[in-house]
Amino acid sequence: MLKAAVLVSGGGTNLQAIIDSIHDGRITDACIDIVVSNNPGAYALERAAKAGIETRVISPKSYPDRPAFNQALTDFLKERGVDLIVLAGFMVVLPEMLIKAFPNRIINVHPSLIPAFCGTGFYGLRVHEAALARGVKVSGATVHFVDEGTDTGPIILQQAVQVEEGDTPEILQRRIMEQAEWKIMPKAIDLIAHGKVTVKDGKVYISK
Amino acid sequence: MLKAAVLVSGGGTNLQAIIDSIHDGRITDACIDIVVSNNPGAYALERAAKAGIETRVISPKSYPDRPAFNQALTDFLKERGVDLIVLAGFMVVLPEMLIKAFPNRIINVHPSLIPAFCGTGFYGLRVHEAALARGVKVSGATVHFVDEGTDTGPIILQQAVQVEEGDTPEILQRRIMEQAEWKIMPKAIDLIAHGKVTVKDGKVYISK
Repeated sequence: MLKAAVLVSGGGTNLQAIIDSIHDGRITDACIDIVVSNNPGAYALERAAKAGIETRVISPKSYPDRPAFNQALTDFLKERGVDLIVLAGFMVVLPEMLIKAFPNRIINVHPSLIPAFCGTGFYGLRVHEAALARGVKVSGATVHFVDEGTDTGPIILQQAVQVEEGDTPEILQRRIMEQAEWKIMPKAIDLIAHGKVTVKDGKVYISK
Repeated sequence: MLKAAVLVSGGGTNLQAIIDSIHDGRITDACIDIVVSNNPGAYALERAAKAGIETRVISPKSYPDRPAFNQALTDFLKERGVDLIVLAGFMVVLPEMLIKAFPNRIINVHPSLIPAFCGTGFYGLRVHEAALARGVKVSGATVHFVDEGTDTGPIILQQAVQVEEGDTPEILQRRIMEQAEWKIMPKAIDLIAHGKVTVKDGKVYISK
């Protein structure tokens, strides 16, 4: 049974998709061991509580400086002994020591087809604003392992989504969540839980 | 009836897709007025001849320098009075005077989902080599209007295509041709022929 920590900061819709996928059997052999938020007011914490999942707030405001927060977050996750860290809208720059402690065991979902509209400055609505500004007809989402770069880690799954005329960044964001993020993130967790995902030379291979 | 010039340099599989689409009615209200090749040995010229389409070779080797070739190509297409120029594997840097003479009336197909894997140096197999090197799970093709930049013009249509494990650049290239390029290029010509494509602020709008 794979033990996952889900890191959140806000509404937690991706967390909810994972919870629902475990409940309805789209994810098997995995559980959410803990939900960690940097923000005590995150609605994601309520979602976790409703699902009976343990939560922990680790806020930078509770520590004298950023290195102390980074150390606390890393120590907590290492001591907890989780197998996988899932970034589900975690709006904190991930500590390098945490990335090094969990090589190819941290996954993130990015709301575009990497390498389009990714890297520094491309997060949240900005991704969709940039896609609409370029006038693309297809966008999507990417689940990838997290490495030291920004959106540079090995790609696990991608799902394309149509851009429609009249889309606002908000409408496109919602469609990409519904048609891509909430599907491929649970699917990636299920594949990892079943030992089907391997990384070689920076690329992901998925066995049948 | 829209009169198109199709510019080729090689095998002409995209030209064939357009010819077939006219024959079977996927393109209506458009005809190929002329096929122009810079290369007298292009197999595309045979495809055109078999379909009863007039051809013309305009080779840089027949002119004293590049400006003279550029002028000849531009003059020919202007005098011919074509409504649309279709780049179907035309391996020549398009003269700026030609681009200025046909604003938003030159279209190209690029074998990726722009803005991924496009720009200077990304052509032919190099596009697919780069996509496989990054380990993307989705690629595709883009039909766009040609402007002064490289792959920067307004996007008309895009089609996503799955990358499969074991893909070589050649296999991925062929799948993207079959599942994307040969579909969206004829579709874009048909939409343009029916006056359904407009460009505003660098973005394409398609009316129903």
